[in-house]
Amino acid sequence: MKLDRALGLLREVPDFPLPGVLFRDLTPVLADPDALRAVVDALQDKIHPDTQVVAAIEARGFLLGAALGYGWRYGVVPLRKPGKLPAVTHRVSYALEYGTATLELPADSISAGQKVVVVDDVLATGGTAAAACELVERAGGVVTGVSVVLEIQGLGGRDLLAGRDVNALLTL
Amino acid sequence: MKLDRALGLLREVPDFPLPGVLFRDLTPVLADPDALRAVVDALQDKIHPDTQVVAAIEARGFLLGAALGYGWRYGVVPLRKPGKLPAVTHRVSYALEYGTATLELPADSISAGQKVVVVDDVLATGGTAAAACELVERAGGVVTGVSVVLEIQGLGGRDLLAGRDVNALLTL
Repeated sequence: MKLDRALGLLREVPDFPLPGVLFRDLTPVLADPDALRAVVDALQDKIHPDTQVVAAIEARGFLLGAALGYGWRYGVVPLRKPGKLPAVTHRVSYALEYGTATLELPADSISAGQKVVVVDDVLATGGTAAAACELVERAGGVVTGVSVVLEIQGLGGRDLLAGRDVNALLTL
Repeated sequence: MKLDRALGLLREVPDFPLPGVLFRDLTPVLADPDALRAVVDALQDKIHPDTQVVAAIEARGFLLGAALGYGWRYGVVPLRKPGKLPAVTHRVSYALEYGTATLELPADSISAGQKVVVVDDVLATGGTAAAACELVERAGGVVTGVSVVLEIQGLGGRDLLAGRDVNALLTL
């Protein structure tokens, strides 16, 4: 399937998670095996070839990151919300579009010098992605880039990630 | 990689999420691309060949389910905790090992008659998996089986899923 057609399956849901926000729902893309493959392979096209590990941001980033990991032979490291990981080495709190949040890195998941791409569904303010990059770097990893399906412009995400290789399949 | 070696990477963490519970942490398996592939392919070996869709349970089930979906061309439907999905058709609440929980099914994600396998990391009491099966069936789907990496015996999971085709890679 062509990427345009796959991304055409994104569903727009008004007023979620807050009034005035138009949410783009990836669910119909994932539910179609050809669309899932088109999107994951398009993410892969922009990932630096030295990359060894996908750092996948909970929870929708898990879906994209694990598919990338299986399909393209990356290790997959889940970056999780607090209290979910039984063994944690690093923790970063940050502001996001609708409040604050914390991400945690599993113990022993990234080795010094490993090349890591950060993967999530959406880039908005960039707070989550910046925290993910910081976690990877605190563990000694090298961030090769940030890959998302959807970038929402005008919220400062690119600025917060200045100097990073940020790749989005669709920019709104 | 052989499955035994992949499963040998599981990390045992005592007293998580509650005192007295020995948690098996899948993180080191996911972080190794060969182990991830071995585990996902072993899950695939037991999935009924008519299956079209993977219903993946939040959040660790997302990692396994999306890898299965990408690798073996299933649609992937995330079954989520409350408040995460912008468009929901069905909701089931249930008891689990450490309290109660609710799962939600995305709108328009499963068609009547679609063959669906439920995927998660661990089967314990079976409450989550049973709720997942009920969600799939409420949407008109046909559950072909329940696939997990790890089954913890003695907690009643098999009984609660009586009549289902339950497959686990490792039983403890």
